[in-house]
Amino acid sequence: MEYTEGESDPGTTRPGGRTARVRAAVLSAAADVLAEQGFAHLDLADIARRAEVGKTTVYRRWGTATGLVTDLLLDMAQQSVPRTETGSLLGDLTANARLVQRTLADPRQGALFKAVIAAAGSDPKAAEALYGFYTARVEEWAPCVEQAAARGEVPGGTDAREVIRATSAPLYYRLLTTALPLDEAAADRAAHAAAAAAAAGAYVRKAGT
Amino acid sequence: MEYTEGESDPGTTRPGGRTARVRAAVLSAAADVLAEQGFAHLDLADIARRAEVGKTTVYRRWGTATGLVTDLLLDMAQQSVPRTETGSLLGDLTANARLVQRTLADPRQGALFKAVIAAAGSDPKAAEALYGFYTARVEEWAPCVEQAAARGEVPGGTDAREVIRATSAPLYYRLLTTALPLDEAAADRAAHAAAAAAAAGAYVRKAGT
Repeated sequence: MEYTEGESDPGTTRPGGRTARVRAAVLSAAADVLAEQGFAHLDLADIARRAEVGKTTVYRRWGTATGLVTDLLLDMAQQSVPRTETGSLLGDLTANARLVQRTLADPRQGALFKAVIAAAGSDPKAAEALYGFYTARVEEWAPCVEQAAARGEVPGGTDAREVIRATSAPLYYRLLTTALPLDEAAADRAAHAAAAAAAAGAYVRKAGT
Repeated sequence: MEYTEGESDPGTTRPGGRTARVRAAVLSAAADVLAEQGFAHLDLADIARRAEVGKTTVYRRWGTATGLVTDLLLDMAQQSVPRTETGSLLGDLTANARLVQRTLADPRQGALFKAVIAAAGSDPKAAEALYGFYTARVEEWAPCVEQAAARGEVPGGTDAREVIRATSAPLYYRLLTTALPLDEAAADRAAHAAAAAAAAGAYVRKAGT
């Protein structure tokens, strides 16, 4: 659950008083509906009822189902845990890959990610919010590749963001396109592959890119 | 368009007479609706009208929107082009990655893939059909890794299917989670990374897996 720690538990105390509590309850209800039923079933009146919040408040503050998904992704980006520093690129990428793998392997979180990716496929505003979520995750972890370059583990000019994206990509691909288990071995393989490819210079920026 | 060559052109002549022509027209219309509007808007009566086929025929043969997606994915798997043999793993994986990249970068095909992945996220039967499509693709290309192992380009015990999946994964991840261009450089980077990681032993099966 670390990706979006706190988001899934409506009982979690958050700073910010009533406004923040209302937001936490509404976003938790929205995540439940997305995970259980998908974006097509995200209805503001239903969310208000589940969150025990006035319907008017939900309509005024979030407006549409897309508005809810956008705010949920913003919250998920803000709540996501900071990166780990292990002292080696393989160690850091393994920590990253295991975090992604545990999140996606969790039935509720896995279904939630499938739902927001599906929503982004048909709704440009949801897509923008989703891209923002992944940009924040990539920015958080990119320094581990820059540190590896400074230590001489990967060539200079390595595109740090591409290495981070390469670590997650096989796990998302496995979740979305196969029935194969999303286990720790898959995470470790993704990290090993990204580190080996980076060391071999596969992510060095080409001239003009 | 090579991924699903022929599927997108309702005027293409196919063997099999009237039954095959009806199927081609219906699946082409279904692909159009999926690409333009998404799975939630896939309606059998609308498809019958677009394909200029009797409504009864469409209901009797495909039954539901999920039935249409399932048959479309089966057709896409059957129509997809055979693998390329270049004599080197990097050459073969580059051919594979460029094929995937050109398909996903095509606006209609990219939207179609987003739509079927979204459908699979909320519909177990569509998911099964999607997994079948990717299994067929992976089986088609896996021999290029087995040949590379025979040539000594990658270690024995390399999981050929994982190498093929690793080649596609960054391209799908880029399509689904970023606004970055899905260009040939992305394809070449994905192929280079998968080949380098495979050569480094990242996809060698561990004991017990």
